[in-house]
Amino acid sequence: MAEPATLLARLASIVGGGNVLTAAAEVAPYVSDWRGRYKGAALAVVRPSCTAEVAAVVRACAEAGVPVVPQGGNTGLCGGATPHDRGDEIVVSLARMNRIRAVDADNATLVVEAGATLAAVQSAARDAGLAFPLSLASEGSCTIGGNLATNAGGTAVLRYGNARELVLGVEVVLADGSVLDMKRALRKDNTGYDLKQLFIGAEGTLGILTAVVLKLFAAPRTQVTSLVAIASVRDAVALLRHAKQALGDRLVGFELMSDVAFGLSRKHHPGTPDPLPGHPWYALVQADDSADDPGLADRVEAMLGAAIELGIAADATVARSVAQAAAMWSARENISEAQRREGPNLKHDISLPVSAIPAYLDEAERALAAAFPGVRFVVFGHLGDGNLHYNLSAPAGTANESFVAASNVERAQRIVHDLVAARGGSISAEHGIGQLKRGELQRTKAPLELALMKRIKAALDPAGILNPGKVL
Amino acid sequence: MAEPATLLARLASIVGGGNVLTAAAEVAPYVSDWRGRYKGAALAVVRPSCTAEVAAVVRACAEAGVPVVPQGGNTGLCGGATPHDRGDEIVVSLARMNRIRAVDADNATLVVEAGATLAAVQSAARDAGLAFPLSLASEGSCTIGGNLATNAGGTAVLRYGNARELVLGVEVVLADGSVLDMKRALRKDNTGYDLKQLFIGAEGTLGILTAVVLKLFAAPRTQVTSLVAIASVRDAVALLRHAKQALGDRLVGFELMSDVAFGLSRKHHPGTPDPLPGHPWYALVQADDSADDPGLADRVEAMLGAAIELGIAADATVARSVAQAAAMWSARENISEAQRREGPNLKHDISLPVSAIPAYLDEAERALAAAFPGVRFVVFGHLGDGNLHYNLSAPAGTANESFVAASNVERAQRIVHDLVAARGGSISAEHGIGQLKRGELQRTKAPLELALMKRIKAALDPAGILNPGKVL
Repeated sequence: MAEPATLLARLASIVGGGNVLTAAAEVAPYVSDWRGRYKGAALAVVRPSCTAEVAAVVRACAEAGVPVVPQGGNTGLCGGATPHDRGDEIVVSLARMNRIRAVDADNATLVVEAGATLAAVQSAARDAGLAFPLSLASEGSCTIGGNLATNAGGTAVLRYGNARELVLGVEVVLADGSVLDMKRALRKDNTGYDLKQLFIGAEGTLGILTAVVLKLFAAPRTQVTSLVAIASVRDAVALLRHAKQALGDRLVGFELMSDVAFGLSRKHHPGTPDPLPGHPWYALVQADDSADDPGLADRVEAMLGAAIELGIAADATVARSVAQAAAMWSARENISEAQRREGPNLKHDISLPVSAIPAYLDEAERALAAAFPGVRFVVFGHLGDGNLHYNLSAPAGTANESFVAASNVERAQRIVHDLVAARGGSISAEHGIGQLKRGELQRTKAPLELALMKRIKAALDPAGILNPGKVL
Repeated sequence: MAEPATLLARLASIVGGGNVLTAAAEVAPYVSDWRGRYKGAALAVVRPSCTAEVAAVVRACAEAGVPVVPQGGNTGLCGGATPHDRGDEIVVSLARMNRIRAVDADNATLVVEAGATLAAVQSAARDAGLAFPLSLASEGSCTIGGNLATNAGGTAVLRYGNARELVLGVEVVLADGSVLDMKRALRKDNTGYDLKQLFIGAEGTLGILTAVVLKLFAAPRTQVTSLVAIASVRDAVALLRHAKQALGDRLVGFELMSDVAFGLSRKHHPGTPDPLPGHPWYALVQADDSADDPGLADRVEAMLGAAIELGIAADATVARSVAQAAAMWSARENISEAQRREGPNLKHDISLPVSAIPAYLDEAERALAAAFPGVRFVVFGHLGDGNLHYNLSAPAGTANESFVAASNVERAQRIVHDLVAARGGSISAEHGIGQLKRGELQRTKAPLELALMKRIKAALDPAGILNPGKVL
């Protein structure tokens, strides 16, 4: 490894001295994560403005044997974009690469640099009379590059799929600084292995996404949001199937919230309406139509009425205005922030076949209540995708800080994840692995899968320059 | 390499002697391709009945240093499932592995073995009140394993995506005979690299798919098929955008046919209706709704009426019965078979950004007419996906056989593919590479992409046991 000063001078010659941050106060926002779980350090934070600069930065780091940590909006939930605390890495922030390069309405595609926020992408699509359907609570600050690097999920996966399914092309800087230009705007392309899939969801360990080509969709012209009170998760699964039957493609979102999760959101965001108080579970049901469809609200009401008659819904209310719909969504979106304000809890981001969820929850609740008497369950998430945020809060009278001690984290993870694995589920549905779940990945993934991942990593980044110690 | 007889005896001990075919007449159907372009040979054709047998067969071949050629329904269009003519390979037919293992209606998923036909998968989905939307002309004989190995496209990609997007999990036998069991039925799973993507579209060169987990969808309950006469491809692109605006998610298929292609279909399938004679181009527009929607036909008619007023459609007719709709689709689906009966022509399976297609066609037609005076264009395909089957027939008075001489194949490919590459297109939109397009792939793909593909191949199949000489 060369002298750090030599590398920093070379980096300054590439991006300009003002874009090589080394002062502690300037570096600070880039070396800890949004949840405040990781405090890292870095040789420097480098802010390139174009693909050629990213390539030159990576080449310089590779030649110096210095690892790079790519970073977008730094909103990740698993520490995947946070450097280690050794201070021997370079953080490469894509934030300055935020241009929308092109919108093609006839092809329904958009080319954007990795550092653009998700909200900016949504807005560019809207300006073209189309829609980019990926939607997350952090969309104002997360970047599209980070969304793809973590294969983000969010609230419209039921209809549109994960981030991976919204991508047509990518431009990637590889571990040696070469630029892989696959910015193809094609819906069909079977010319050999689909290399772009390697970089999506790899959390910057196989390459750095610098630009992407995204699919756009017809914008929703009719939207109906409803809140449903439900007696049990078994009923929620039945309601999901019933809603799919009745609404078909119009069913865009189906979010589940426990009364505890919903209550937490209301507590920390005063003014949140509580239109159906006193039920154990709630579903937020979003129905969209890309065509004008004045009958959609009636169709949703009929579906809900039938569900109540069938006994799979207890009560329901349909938003009568855009403001009411927004308030229902805010109640759901605010749960994460409410949890942060409430203090630390034990978080899990699991997925299961939808059909396996009721029995899983019964079993997990029994096991966890035995292990942690009085534990409180904060359960919410994307039931339509089989994805739940399955979080545990301290029993009444126990301090949050002592409840989230490392020994409890590990004990709870083992219970939650082992039961997930036994039912064919995933220990990280949408947040990725980062640093946080590396140990659990090693513990729960089949050895053959881990071995193949390592072979892929070795094939693409033999020197281990790209985001080492993340994922694998 | 061991004696062939030793290997064959070992294979017989695995699958039973009756499932190791060596007699010329028995082997024949497995060693040539559907189009009759390739005549290969094989040490034997082996027909395992389960995953463990496939694994044992591959292990035996790997230990003997004998390559294996996986084969499903043998309907591929690029010779990807046809052994070479050296006769030193083992064809592994998945045809006996055709069980539907499970259907989960609450999770909307299906687990099926690789050798089941696409039609059998569609039928199992229908029996559960759901739909598997992949649809191809060969669906009665192609297998789901082959569909995924080639990332099949077909006529509903516009709404549902390619085969890749319909897969949740896979079970794969690797090059050393180990079994990678990733039959997860999860819509969200971000636990490391998405390894299944490697095997989808790799044409059996990285592993042999033995079972897959597929997404199911709400079945269409309302379907409206229409045929539209169009003056130019530019108008067709405008009509596509207009139809997307008006129908949104309901627009499931948008197929383009030239009058020549349509006429060929009618010539070889007498009785095919010709409801709008005398136009240069036709679009087949399929609108589906997964809900009961009695107004859909009116909506489609209004869309078409507006298109005629806008001058982007010349005439249109909406099918008034299931039989009329089926006849419209048959006219489209029969083009491939009609071409086969008409005699050989020069075929290309290209894709482009939809917006680039009109200018591409102008340019390609000029260049080809100059190179091959009098050449006839048989153009049809999935305009909604930017995918055209761009085929060239002999000028009147020229024998088909002399027209498709190797020198003409190469000359035409160079013209067609170089112009495609110049506009960011693909030389194989949905058929894959197989043997047929290997040279063109080497010629047109960026060296860095080819190098990465070779690194992946070396990482997963270092001894080159799996389908050598295909794709790369």
